Amino acid sequence: MSRLLQDVVGELTKLPGVGRRTALRLAIHLLRMEPESVHDMTRSINRFRDDVKYCAQCNNLSDEEICPICADPERDHSTICVVEQVADVLSIENTHQYRGLYHVLGGVISPMQGIAPSDLKIDLLVDRIARGGVKEVILAISTSVEGETTLFYLMNRLRQFEGLKVTAIARGIGFGDELEYVDELTIAHALMNRREVE
Amino acid sequence: MSRLLQDVVGELTKLPGVGRRTALRLAIHLLRMEPESVHDMTRSINRFRDDVKYCAQCNNLSDEEICPICADPERDHSTICVVEQVADVLSIENTHQYRGLYHVLGGVISPMQGIAPSDLKIDLLVDRIARGGVKEVILAISTSVEGETTLFYLMNRLRQFEGLKVTAIARGIGFGDELEYVDELTIAHALMNRREVE
Repeated sequence: MSRLLQDVVGELTKLPGVGRRTALRLAIHLLRMEPESVHDMTRSINRFRDDVKYCAQCNNLSDEEICPICADPERDHSTICVVEQVADVLSIENTHQYRGLYHVLGGVISPMQGIAPSDLKIDLLVDRIARGGVKEVILAISTSVEGETTLFYLMNRLRQFEGLKVTAIARGIGFGDELEYVDELTIAHALMNRREVE
Repeated sequence: MSRLLQDVVGELTKLPGVGRRTALRLAIHLLRMEPESVHDMTRSINRFRDDVKYCAQCNNLSDEEICPICADPERDHSTICVVEQVADVLSIENTHQYRGLYHVLGGVISPMQGIAPSDLKIDLLVDRIARGGVKEVILAISTSVEGETTLFYLMNRLRQFEGLKVTAIARGIGFGDELEYVDELTIAHALMNRREVE
């Protein structure tokens, strides 16, 4: 096998979900792309990795010191939605339903993976709330074991702020999900949290 | 959304099987990699695209004028296995069962996609056989409509070589495949080509 191909396959398998087979397929595809198009891609990858910054307030990706969401006076600065990662901000923004701010933890507490609360931007969140003006914190953390651990840890840390409303996003059956394929825990939760239909 | 992130997501979706969601996941992963590791990856992608060469004899990827397989005196130079693409060479090499040479067509004939026989390395194959020394050509082409078209076209072109044995790889039920999930055409083929068990 060509050494150049071997190298690129080895490098591409660094990416998540990319095994040797996929890496090979991607490499072969590169050959069909114009060299200039490949260069554009690698240049934007390097630039992204080298120049990306994080918002000093919410830890979201940002090209500036403060991200456009935190800097937007039109948004509701009294509400903070706490999420695990940058991708979650994008998912929520795509709904166009949320007008508050965010706080990106950068992961969840995971003793198994050696991620302690101090590895996450929790102190930044607490300091931010301590500066005042925040009325509600929405915890939009995943329902994994690690997510639940993080949720309880956050609830404990936020208890010090009297009058602060702390909420968690609703768990339930997703739109378009068939009950048959939904796990029991979710169904049980959805039953418990049933709402009267008007 | 950060402009740098937007750029990299747009660029990554150029890759096959990478939609916006996957591109986003890949981008977020890049942030967890060391910058030097990201640079190594992009450098090897650029080098692969810029410096890759094709074997002048068999059209396989090669770092040299003639690829290591064609240049290997230990291999059987009287047998040529014709495949669609570079990845197929790797698949067959991984079996460690084949000791002959290869010929990479670079695709299959596809009027729908505007791929004519002249777009493939078929003349190169014919010239190669015309130089003599080849006893058998194994056609290892996929069973798609385009593959069958290519197979028949090749058989026609190779008919001119008297005494040349032209074979096609066996079609049948794959190891580990359950009959229940195999398509009828394959089953019918496998039944027709049944072998006496010793």
